[in-house]
Formats: sequence, structure tokens, C-alpha cells
Amino acid sequence: MVNKLVDGVNGVASSSTSQDARVLSIQSHVTYGYVGGKAAVFPLQCMGFDVDVINTVNFSNHSGYGHLGGTKTSAEELERIIASMKHIGLLRPDRLLTGYTSSAEALQVVHKLAADLRQINPDLVYLLDPVLGDSGKLYVSPETVPVYRAMLPLATVITPNWFEVEVLTDIKMSDMFSLRAAIQKLHDEYHVPNVVISSIPLRQWLIDSLPESIRPPQSADEDAQYLLCISSSATGPSTVHARCVPLIPGYFSGVGDLFSALLLGHFIPPSTKTTPLSQPGDSAQTALSRATSAALAKTHALLALTDEYTRLLPEDERIPTDEERDKVDPVPKFRRMRGRELRLIQGQHIFRQTELRPDEQMQEWAGFW
Amino acid sequence: MVNKLVDGVNGVASSSTSQDARVLSIQSHVTYGYVGGKAAVFPLQCMGFDVDVINTVNFSNHSGYGHLGGTKTSAEELERIIASMKHIGLLRPDRLLTGYTSSAEALQVVHKLAADLRQINPDLVYLLDPVLGDSGKLYVSPETVPVYRAMLPLATVITPNWFEVEVLTDIKMSDMFSLRAAIQKLHDEYHVPNVVISSIPLRQWLIDSLPESIRPPQSADEDAQYLLCISSSATGPSTVHARCVPLIPGYFSGVGDLFSALLLGHFIPPSTKTTPLSQPGDSAQTALSRATSAALAKTHALLALTDEYTRLLPEDERIPTDEERDKVDPVPKFRRMRGRELRLIQGQHIFRQTELRPDEQMQEWAGFW
Repeated sequence: MVNKLVDGVNGVASSSTSQDARVLSIQSHVTYGYVGGKAAVFPLQCMGFDVDVINTVNFSNHSGYGHLGGTKTSAEELERIIASMKHIGLLRPDRLLTGYTSSAEALQVVHKLAADLRQINPDLVYLLDPVLGDSGKLYVSPETVPVYRAMLPLATVITPNWFEVEVLTDIKMSDMFSLRAAIQKLHDEYHVPNVVISSIPLRQWLIDSLPESIRPPQSADEDAQYLLCISSSATGPSTVHARCVPLIPGYFSGVGDLFSALLLGHFIPPSTKTTPLSQPGDSAQTALSRATSAALAKTHALLALTDEYTRLLPEDERIPTDEERDKVDPVPKFRRMRGRELRLIQGQHIFRQTELRPDEQMQEWAGFW
Repeated sequence: MVNKLVDGVNGVASSSTSQDARVLSIQSHVTYGYVGGKAAVFPLQCMGFDVDVINTVNFSNHSGYGHLGGTKTSAEELERIIASMKHIGLLRPDRLLTGYTSSAEALQVVHKLAADLRQINPDLVYLLDPVLGDSGKLYVSPETVPVYRAMLPLATVITPNWFEVEVLTDIKMSDMFSLRAAIQKLHDEYHVPNVVISSIPLRQWLIDSLPESIRPPQSADEDAQYLLCISSSATGPSTVHARCVPLIPGYFSGVGDLFSALLLGHFIPPSTKTTPLSQPGDSAQTALSRATSAALAKTHALLALTDEYTRLLPEDERIPTDEERDKVDPVPKFRRMRGRELRLIQGQHIFRQTELRPDEQMQEWAGFW
């Protein structure tokens, strides 16, 4: 038994050309490897979207290598590209995807554009990934935080990580009380209808609060770790869904960018005439939880494929980082990072899949509130 | 009866991951539409290639709209990206694809890189598209011409148009004598092993010189026009192949960029262990003619798909250009150009096809010399 993901809309499976859809993607570009736009654009294209691509940086590679070369796109340069598109009448996306932007000034330009597009097209589906940092560390300038806060009301969906939720809401999440408060603040104060937080480490208080149906299996393997993904949709009655996925150990870059792109690609706004096939258990799903299920399953499948490849590499290219030794000789680190680039091209069949297994579905978290 | 194009190598049809292949593509980037890298990268990715992408410009759209915004990448910026890739060990393409570069200085950087890559990897397959101009007009600075001439000996395949052959060789091609002289000059003086000239208007002297098997059919429709594609391979005895394809009227941008990318993707160097399946009639083929057949058939199929879409547009978006009226009101022109963007995403199944019909094959032009 499988669930149709998108009922042929945008799917390559349907070769319909009447269902044209266009995404404007604004994020980083790297020559080598798959982060930012390089992780997002190809999957969306495989799904049948025309993707307009604005590069917020043009770098040789992602920052995980510890060395890079290239140029950030200035606010003025972004403005020039946007002004020309506006002049010609090329600013006509059905969906908008924004990710890493290199400065608060450049982000202001993206903000202005998002506001304009939202005004022109109230049905615009805008996925805003507020790229701020991870694991307690900001990796953008602090000036971008208030800009992101001001942008939140424009978004249809946001995909912050745990740390980014804390920064945006100014709420440290340490129990169900504060988790609820943070999500509520995003919905009520920042008027974000759809919030997805992926890759949440399963702290004990979270496990204890999860309904039985969502809790990770108590496997024989004690070391098997899981990550939690939560989606909260406040369109109509606020509904929270969640799913635990097995953690694939190791450091992979671009995973969040891929996840956000897939989520945007699979999101079918409730207003759209196209309704996904109703399947057993589907009545408990929201537009957001359906898209999150698809994005989560596909991202996990691609990571598993990447991990499988990484395991075939020589030992010195897959052992964990040794920061001490990397300082003396960075070459082994360069090789390790190269071996961990997402296998986006080799896994392209994953992006074209139009069906999901029921066990890949997000489950409603009934007692969340 | 069909011919296998690439015998599963690089083809997505074979999900083999042992056959990893990497292309470095250096050409223009546009946010909206499909020229340069936007026309080349996605098809190569669909074919299973990891593509490293260096953007020689970041523009809003292609120049055919008559208005654009954005930035050219300076020689220094290109150098910084390349230096970082070199430092990290990311300069490891199996194939190199170079197209439009915005200045002679930037092209010098590409020249230096191509020379380095050729030295590191003598088996590098380098497709050089010497983008100079068309229909008698240069659209790059004249200083780039000598740089391209100096680069020619590094190339595995070049894909100049008729005008570019004339500029590079300084031979005006007006009969079989001068056509032979120009091709011979590219092979002998510039040491290019493989030359492909596509989209040649069929002048009477050319038709008269073509062998019966290559000549376009004398159809009932007098107006049906054809373009000729010639490939000349000087690996071993110099062999010339040709094929006529029906002309699809109208102005489409990015067609040459798409053709070159597909040609590079389908080129299986004679040194490679992988040999394409031998089929009836295949013994008369060279590595170059096989790749040209595939690129020509796929480019033509995508153009036909685009043309089909264009015909569905409102009349004012598909009527031919009226330069007088465009000067007064450019908006109709903008709409027309938008309607003529290649349907690259909608036609992605074409790029994944691994089989060709025999009538799509280039034919040997036995009496060419």
C-alpha cells in the first residue's frame, strides 16, 4: 500500500504541460558539491518545476571544507537582477524559496522582493528557510536576525532548525512548555501558518512526551539513534504532526537545503483545486504534514544512498574529523568533506518518486497542545 | 530497431554508481530561462553526470530580450574560485565544457585552466564551444578571437557555428573547396581532432555536393526547410558525417549550448573500454558521429516540444519580431522571448533516453574529401 505524493501535479510521472509551475530560488551557489541552490534546484527540476535561480554567493565549495574562494553577491547586484526581471515581466513565480543570504543588506533586498511578490500574488507559496546557524552558534551576522523576524509574516512555510527557532522566538526550549510557547509564538506573533522543525535530537523529555505511535522503536541496537521532525500547521485548527527517523551518523552538508526544496515542491496549498488521493489514514493529514512526509522520506533516502557510498571510501576518507591533526595537514579533511557530498545526481530517481509508504508518513501528535 | 546511445554508461537507465563521471562547465548563468549553463547543466545531470558549475556571468536573463541586469564575473573572481578548488583538490573533472565567457581576460583564465587540466589528465574530454557570434556578427570583443585560436589545440571537440568557423580559420566558406580547407585547417593547423558544425543553412552548392543518402527528402511541401550538421573526426583516417534535420522556424536561444552539452555527455572517447553496442550500420560510425547523432536528435526533439508549446500561446506572443514596433513598446517582445524559452524541464525525458532510431544517425559523407 502506497500513498500518492502529489497526484501527478508537478510530478514528472505526469507529462502534462498544462500544470506548469515556476519556483524562484534565492540562495548560495557553489561550483563543486551540493549545498544551497546546488542542493535545491536539481531536485525541483526533476519534479518538473521551472526554477529561476538567483545566486547570493558564487563560491568554489561549501564552508565545511574550511577553505573557499569566490564572491558574495552584493545587495546592489541582487537589486539589478531583480529590477531587470521586473522590467521585463519575468518575476512571476508560483513559489518562492529563500535560503542562505550573505549579509543583512542582501537579505533586505530579498525581504523587499518577497513582500512585492506576496502582494502581486496572494497565493504565492513561500518557503523561508531562516539560515542563521546551528548547535548554538550563529554563522551569519546578528543583524540578519531582525530582518528574518520581519520577513516571517510573509512566509507560507518556514523550516528553522532547533537553534534557529530559539533565536527567532527568543525562547530556550527545554521542556514541552517552552516548545509549545515557541511554536505558538511563531504562529501567533509572527503569523507563520506552517512551521517545520527537522533533525531534532531526541532528548529524554521529548521522548517522554511523544505519543506511543510516534516514539522510536525500542530496537535491540541500543546505539541506534533517532531524530525527530515536527510540523505544525495553523491553517484551520492548529495541528501538530511528527515522525522519528533513524539518524545517519556523520556530517553531511546541504541536507537542510535539500529538505526545504523537497518540502516546497511537495506542498499543495489547501486552496489548490488538485487534492491528493485520499488514502486510509490520510484524513488525519494536513497539506503541511503530507509535504513534510514526502520531503523527510526523500531526504532520508538520499542520505542513506550517500552514506552507502561513503562507506566504500578508503578508511582515511571516512574517519571522523580530527581537528588537531587537521590543523597540521588539512588535506585529509578536504578528502573527507569531498567524500561526504550528497549523491544528488546518482539518487535522482528518489526525487521523481511519486509514492510513499504509509510508514513514511508523519503521525498526528494528538495531545501536543 | 533502435541504437543504444551510450550502452548504459553515464545513463540514468543504469543506476551503476561505479561509473561516476564529473563535468566542469564554465559558461553564463541566467536567473530566468535556459541559455549557457542553465541550458547545459540540467541535461547533463539528468544523464547522470556530477556537474561543477562556474558562472562567467550572473544575469537576469539572456540578451535576446534586449534588456538585462546582472554582473560579469571578472578574471580575478574566476581565478579565486579556481585557486580554491585547486587548493582543496576539487579540480578533478573527467570532462570540461566551456562556452560564453564575458571578456578576453576572463577567457585567458579559462585557457590557463584548460591547459592545466589537460596536463593533469591527458584523457580529459574537452568540448570547447568558441562562442564568438552568429550570422556575420561578432558578439564578443575581437580580442577573444586570438585567445580561442590559442585554446583550440587543447580541445577534444569543438562546436563552432558556420560564422565561427570562418572567423577562426579566416576562410570564407562559399564552396566545397573552401569548406574542405576550413575543416582541414582546424584539424591540421589547430590540431582539433573533432569538429562539429551544426545548423548550417542548406545553400544550393551544399545540397549539390551532398551524397544522395544525406540529401533532404524532396517533400511535397516546397517550403519545408532543412539544416545540415557536419561532423569531422580526424582520429585515425579523417571521416566526415552529416545529417539534415528539418528547420523549426523561429528564434530560440540556448539551442547551441544545449547541443554542445548533449554532445559532450554522449561522447565516448575511443580510448574508453566501454564500447557502444555494435548495431547494423554502426561500423561506419565514429565516436564523434555517434555522439553527434544523439545530441542532434535530442536537441531537435526538445525544439519540437518547445515549438509545440509556443504554438499554443496567444497570437501576439508568437508572431515574428517587428523591430520597428518593438522600439516604441518593448513589452510584446519581452513576452515573445519568454514564450520561446526552451522547454528544458518539461522535456527532461528526452535527455534520459538511451536509444536512437537508425534514421536519427549521422551518415558517412564518403566523397567529402
